[in-house]
Amino acid sequence: MRELLGGKGANVAEMIRVLGADRVPPGFTITTEACLAFLRDRESPHGLEEQIDAGLRALEERSSRRLGDPGDPLLVSVRSGAPVSMPGMMDTVLNLGLSDEAVEGLAARTGNERFAWDSYRRFTQMFGNVVRGIAGARFEELLAAAREAQGANSDAELDAETLRRLSRQFIELAEADSGRPVPRDPLEQLREAIHAVFASWEAPRAIEYRRLSAIPEDLGTAANVQAMVFGNTGPRSGSGVAFSRDELTGAPRPSGDFLANAQGEDVVSGTRTTDDLDGMADTAPSAHEELLGVLGTLERHFGDMQDVEFTVEDGRLYLLQTRAAKRPAQAAVRFALDAVAEGLLSEEDALLTIDADRLETLLLPTFDPEAEFEVLVRGVGASPGAAKGKIVLSAAEAIAGGEAGEDVILVRPFTEADDVAGFHAAKGILTAEGGRASHAALVARGMGRPCVAGATDLRVDLEGQRIDIGERTLLPGEQIAIDGSAGIVTLDDVPLVEPEANEYLEEVLGWADRSRKLGVRANADTGADAERAVQLGAEGIGLCRTEHMFFGADREESVKEVFIAAERWRRIVALERYASERLEGAGSEAAALARGEFQAQLAKLEELQRGDFEDLFRAMGSRPVTIRLLDPPLHEFLPVRHFELELADAEASGDVDAVNTAQERLELVRGLAETNPMIGTRGSRLGILYPQLYEMQVTAIMRAAVTVRAKGNDPEVEVMLPLIAYEGELSELRELVVTTAERVLGERNSRIEYAVGTMIELPRSCLIADRISAHADFLSFGTNDLTQTAIGLSRDDVEGRFIDVYIDHEILDRSPFEGLDEPGVGELVSLAAERGRRGNPNLHLGICGEHGGDPKSIAFFARIGLDYVSCSPIRVPVARLAAAQAAILAARTDRSPQ
Amino acid sequence: MRELLGGKGANVAEMIRVLGADRVPPGFTITTEACLAFLRDRESPHGLEEQIDAGLRALEERSSRRLGDPGDPLLVSVRSGAPVSMPGMMDTVLNLGLSDEAVEGLAARTGNERFAWDSYRRFTQMFGNVVRGIAGARFEELLAAAREAQGANSDAELDAETLRRLSRQFIELAEADSGRPVPRDPLEQLREAIHAVFASWEAPRAIEYRRLSAIPEDLGTAANVQAMVFGNTGPRSGSGVAFSRDELTGAPRPSGDFLANAQGEDVVSGTRTTDDLDGMADTAPSAHEELLGVLGTLERHFGDMQDVEFTVEDGRLYLLQTRAAKRPAQAAVRFALDAVAEGLLSEEDALLTIDADRLETLLLPTFDPEAEFEVLVRGVGASPGAAKGKIVLSAAEAIAGGEAGEDVILVRPFTEADDVAGFHAAKGILTAEGGRASHAALVARGMGRPCVAGATDLRVDLEGQRIDIGERTLLPGEQIAIDGSAGIVTLDDVPLVEPEANEYLEEVLGWADRSRKLGVRANADTGADAERAVQLGAEGIGLCRTEHMFFGADREESVKEVFIAAERWRRIVALERYASERLEGAGSEAAALARGEFQAQLAKLEELQRGDFEDLFRAMGSRPVTIRLLDPPLHEFLPVRHFELELADAEASGDVDAVNTAQERLELVRGLAETNPMIGTRGSRLGILYPQLYEMQVTAIMRAAVTVRAKGNDPEVEVMLPLIAYEGELSELRELVVTTAERVLGERNSRIEYAVGTMIELPRSCLIADRISAHADFLSFGTNDLTQTAIGLSRDDVEGRFIDVYIDHEILDRSPFEGLDEPGVGELVSLAAERGRRGNPNLHLGICGEHGGDPKSIAFFARIGLDYVSCSPIRVPVARLAAAQAAILAARTDRSPQ
Repeated sequence: MRELLGGKGANVAEMIRVLGADRVPPGFTITTEACLAFLRDRESPHGLEEQIDAGLRALEERSSRRLGDPGDPLLVSVRSGAPVSMPGMMDTVLNLGLSDEAVEGLAARTGNERFAWDSYRRFTQMFGNVVRGIAGARFEELLAAAREAQGANSDAELDAETLRRLSRQFIELAEADSGRPVPRDPLEQLREAIHAVFASWEAPRAIEYRRLSAIPEDLGTAANVQAMVFGNTGPRSGSGVAFSRDELTGAPRPSGDFLANAQGEDVVSGTRTTDDLDGMADTAPSAHEELLGVLGTLERHFGDMQDVEFTVEDGRLYLLQTRAAKRPAQAAVRFALDAVAEGLLSEEDALLTIDADRLETLLLPTFDPEAEFEVLVRGVGASPGAAKGKIVLSAAEAIAGGEAGEDVILVRPFTEADDVAGFHAAKGILTAEGGRASHAALVARGMGRPCVAGATDLRVDLEGQRIDIGERTLLPGEQIAIDGSAGIVTLDDVPLVEPEANEYLEEVLGWADRSRKLGVRANADTGADAERAVQLGAEGIGLCRTEHMFFGADREESVKEVFIAAERWRRIVALERYASERLEGAGSEAAALARGEFQAQLAKLEELQRGDFEDLFRAMGSRPVTIRLLDPPLHEFLPVRHFELELADAEASGDVDAVNTAQERLELVRGLAETNPMIGTRGSRLGILYPQLYEMQVTAIMRAAVTVRAKGNDPEVEVMLPLIAYEGELSELRELVVTTAERVLGERNSRIEYAVGTMIELPRSCLIADRISAHADFLSFGTNDLTQTAIGLSRDDVEGRFIDVYIDHEILDRSPFEGLDEPGVGELVSLAAERGRRGNPNLHLGICGEHGGDPKSIAFFARIGLDYVSCSPIRVPVARLAAAQAAILAARTDRSPQ
Repeated sequence: MRELLGGKGANVAEMIRVLGADRVPPGFTITTEACLAFLRDRESPHGLEEQIDAGLRALEERSSRRLGDPGDPLLVSVRSGAPVSMPGMMDTVLNLGLSDEAVEGLAARTGNERFAWDSYRRFTQMFGNVVRGIAGARFEELLAAAREAQGANSDAELDAETLRRLSRQFIELAEADSGRPVPRDPLEQLREAIHAVFASWEAPRAIEYRRLSAIPEDLGTAANVQAMVFGNTGPRSGSGVAFSRDELTGAPRPSGDFLANAQGEDVVSGTRTTDDLDGMADTAPSAHEELLGVLGTLERHFGDMQDVEFTVEDGRLYLLQTRAAKRPAQAAVRFALDAVAEGLLSEEDALLTIDADRLETLLLPTFDPEAEFEVLVRGVGASPGAAKGKIVLSAAEAIAGGEAGEDVILVRPFTEADDVAGFHAAKGILTAEGGRASHAALVARGMGRPCVAGATDLRVDLEGQRIDIGERTLLPGEQIAIDGSAGIVTLDDVPLVEPEANEYLEEVLGWADRSRKLGVRANADTGADAERAVQLGAEGIGLCRTEHMFFGADREESVKEVFIAAERWRRIVALERYASERLEGAGSEAAALARGEFQAQLAKLEELQRGDFEDLFRAMGSRPVTIRLLDPPLHEFLPVRHFELELADAEASGDVDAVNTAQERLELVRGLAETNPMIGTRGSRLGILYPQLYEMQVTAIMRAAVTVRAKGNDPEVEVMLPLIAYEGELSELRELVVTTAERVLGERNSRIEYAVGTMIELPRSCLIADRISAHADFLSFGTNDLTQTAIGLSRDDVEGRFIDVYIDHEILDRSPFEGLDEPGVGELVSLAAERGRRGNPNLHLGICGEHGGDPKSIAFFARIGLDYVSCSPIRVPVARLAAAQAAILAARTDRSPQ
């Protein structure tokens, strides 16, 4: 019923069942269906009025009062209630049912004139604000004037007469500003209020909340109409919210806020200072005791930590709503553990109460929650955690700063592959453009660096070496702090809090490991990352991007020379090959020279890579390590700008030879530039064009494995060939890998088992997975690239450009780079998994794209029976839990009758 | 049996059946299977020697002679024979079976010592050249020396003694050069010769031929061993080749070449001047008469024009091989027509004898076949036809030249979208890079402009305004001529020959139209192209690329301003939208101004487009016209360079306002640049971001349709939305199209039927075709883009870069942009067709990528049941024929028992 009644409506119904009708004011719910029809047609859909009338009649019967009855009027609240909780995002109208006559009746019945007029004031204010959309400040101005006129310190001191005058003023304001009369008939008011609640589904803040929480746009909200109970009838009354356990820590002790002689809105709005529950024990002792009992009952009934809204009317406790409490990760973990210890939940049920996505925050430093600071600018929280440091504007400066032992924050308009070297060195990354799925965000998350992206108010002027924010200017070297979870940037020196070792997390993840079927590996490129991954429970490395090993000040020059030599040699060979039908004899002297140079450069790089692989193998012990051979287009390592400067230097030196050389190098580098590098000469295409590159990498891998093994480790090596489109590519390169590996093992007289597989990143490879898998020991889905090709979306280009517009237009729920696109990319993955296993029943199947750390996507991968997911080290706990949740839910679906 | 025996072996067997064993020298065939095993292992495969021995024994029995018999030796020829004819591409060894002793036996038996030694000389020469791989020139040198020593004018005058000496010299040369003795045992010679024939499958020229003809690499060749008959035994002997009809025109009169007292190799090598068949009638009258009879018999038997190789030995005619004659398009068409008239073939059978791919050449000018000229450089024949003109190096100069009435050839290192404007103005295009599927080639073929691409010896220096070819330099303005069929470039003033109206073609295509099921439309963007398409039989326009209408000197400025205004307005709106939660009130004055400017610019462009659409509708009468709304990324119309110059001009003028404006424009244009534009902000994404652009285009289309209709035409309008990935994009834009169209029709008080559909260019759209088709009247596959995304191949980047390498490595047979990749892209198309029809049973399905003009791909599209293909106008006849052939073959497959 949740789908139709919304969470609130369903829970109220359930609450009545559990606590009895006496504790819960009666009410009825207008369904989400009506909301969707209303939003579609922008008018009251057929049957809605009848639905309202029928609900109202029943409610009037149960409460023995009638709406608008001048003698003893029924008052109701109208609240939104979506199928998925969106706390505070949508609208509410309270105290509905009063008219100029009915307010007198209420006063007479309750013998409390002030209360009656306060209720009417509240209603007219909310109607004007919520239903007619008039800015809240306009009403506050009138309230302030009234307080001043009466010499009152707070609204609670306003007397009946003042409140009566204010009610009239509010009605006048609403009518003048909206140009329409405020209906005197409470039934008309009710209809208008329900429409307003429906419309608030499309309020910008609600849309934004759904976007951030990946809640579908087409759910709609229900409207809950409930008889009012009053917390503002006097000192024995009050309103509050309460949690069945501490909402911040999860400690097994109820917590909450209470405000005497007030309605719920006063508690939520924060305009008055609330008491905690202990304070309530003094004001309303029996209601307090009852509340504690009810919290326990509800928690046991719903099997989850509860967040309730309650009102005490003249000492009597009413529960207005209950829902599962939103809670930070630490509270979620603590609750799960305690709930099992208390016998409240089974381990499996307890696991299901934790939001996997948030687990990551337990592992990251944060701004001290107690600290006060001024927000300089906001952006998107693109990679969680907090960091402080001096502003630098280039990767080179970041590296220099890092080497000098300084904390630096890399600030860029946006980031590119060239900037990645700076990510390692920086404590955090801040970009003016991009979103959660931008290059900067992805790489930062992969490396566990905090990142705020899309801080669009920044103007980063690289030439001018300055950053403008409105009238303000920042210069390199200034201190800055970012919170990559909240997307906040400040210049204040906020203290950072390191995460404490969480005593509960390990135990909960232990349960998860017992429940899940899906393996969890990490994407890691260095020994340090690998160690962290193992600490966090990774069972292997699912993706080592060997090109990331090329970054670092000492390496970049060496890498450039390798690729220059590679391309020079390839060109000479291609030219001679082209001419070979006319020429007699084998390769020329030029070719031999070029080859020699290439080999010499390769030998240098091989040594560097070997060391890196040794670190990796050592860190991973006997766990599997999947190493992807070189993937990105060569020209990413050969920035044209660098070679233009080289030429300029040579020209300045006046050395003719140097100029010639620099000219040739620049031309060669320009020749490698591509119009669409993402779908250009990259991946295994490099291995076909420059087999020596892959040969060098395999040599380094196998030598490293042999060395590490000699020291007692037992590395499990998996060599992965990227971006395979054709069966022939894989068979040719597999041959190269095996030949090279056997040569190395022969030379070292050693024996190491290794597997050869491929990354599936193209729709074509999915379609021919049966043929590909005949040459592969494993397939690993690179869902980032597969998303780019299947949907024709270049991540670098479309993120800030139109993904947001697509979400606004409800074409998309969230970026397909954040959550797997199941009908498109997902279908390709599932089809490839099936065909792959058909071609090779022993095939091992994994996924190593960003989606490997996204719980919803992990559930999909579990469903189609992959063997493992691989994600950033920091997401490993997330994946372990999400995989367990997927397995638990799948088992239940299988068991449940249809 | 063709697969195993090769074409030659199978045809010889068939010839014996038809003509009797007396006419055909006996022989045996070693299968392609043995060849493939040999090529794989590089050694004689198991069982091969036994196969040779068995074949030889049977042959010896039938011919009553033994190989190597010193008294009366059996001589044999060893010829290659692939399953698909590759004339002249592979090796042959003749006169095998002689040794120093056997040659004396042959002399004694024939009483012709000179003949015997001539045969031995020929054998030793071929063995050294073909089997041992020694350059032919080395043998020719020795022959020349011998002729000089003997004072002979030709080899035919060399006496027995000289020939004996030469035989010895040739053996010595072969042994010295190859470092291995020449076996004296003829059986050993035979084995070595068979290996050589097998190995010749992998000779570079054979590989290149297969690449150009799209023949698979894994067929292998058979080796045919046949008893020799001798055309060199004296004046009553001779050798020749004959065609059952004139091989150039197809006229019903045998033609051929004959050489008296010679072996076949003398005829083929071209070293001696041959007679025609009339000449043969004088030399060998009865053999000539017999030959004419045999040609008729074979033609009737095989049901196709034949190309035979024959020998006359002492007046007696022997047929050595027969095969279907390769023929130019005009001969193919003439033959088909005559064959039906003569009752030789049915219309359907006659249609199957024509190579659809070549039909295009009938419609294009060519270099005069009689003309002599010097080839300057060779490239790839990328778009057929020939052209002459002055060299220009930029699109702008091409346009200027065209407007001045000059013939110009546009020469570029490679071409980009910006150059397309120049294609219209130029007579032909020449590029240094790229292949048959490069941008230049595709666009040139689309426009029917001749193009030579990949002329890699050219160095086009745009900055220096010169072209270097080795030592030579060409400057703009020099005269040049290109042949886009042959890929030839010359500086000579070669006469061009316009194609004559072919009296036969129309009739043959009429048959094709009756046989085919697939509709044929054309891709055309102008009235002129559309008229040409209709003349060539197009039944509609399957793709009008509206952006091509933006080219032309008068339009480019206007187009730039539209897009600048569009983007400026979009940014302002986006900014305000972003701020709208804080701001009260609707759009600002700035937004209103920007929108006004945008609308004014749109109105101008709308008028231009409307005129273009009127031309198109007029040309097409009541045929369907599919118009694709704007597809390429905006920044393609906004070259950064242009705006840099604008800024430089402004700075030079010193006008501060102008500088500010230019700076803002440049920044805006730079902001539009993309890393991977092919998968960036393009296609329908533009329609979502800038709905006014599409609205303008639909307005222009519908206004044009109304205008043309008022003049008595009845246009059938189909509006096509490009690059749809999501159902939501299509439903939103369909709504926009319909709303706009109805508005225009309402304003004009007119009624025109129109369809709305989409182009399927992304793997994702194929997978969700059922959902997409619910919003579409038609789907048209854009197989170019679908190939790029499904395989992750950027056409612009990979063509020259690695497609050739992939073909060399046998990973690919031909570029997937030339022939549809059936296992990948084809499967997506077929899956989408099925799902699309499931979602909408009335769905119309077409294809408008380049593959729509490729016969093999057309057969695939026919097989999966598409409704139509659309291709360049010039390929329309090709498609009509290919579609008919596909339908005929499909019907036969259905009829034939399995």
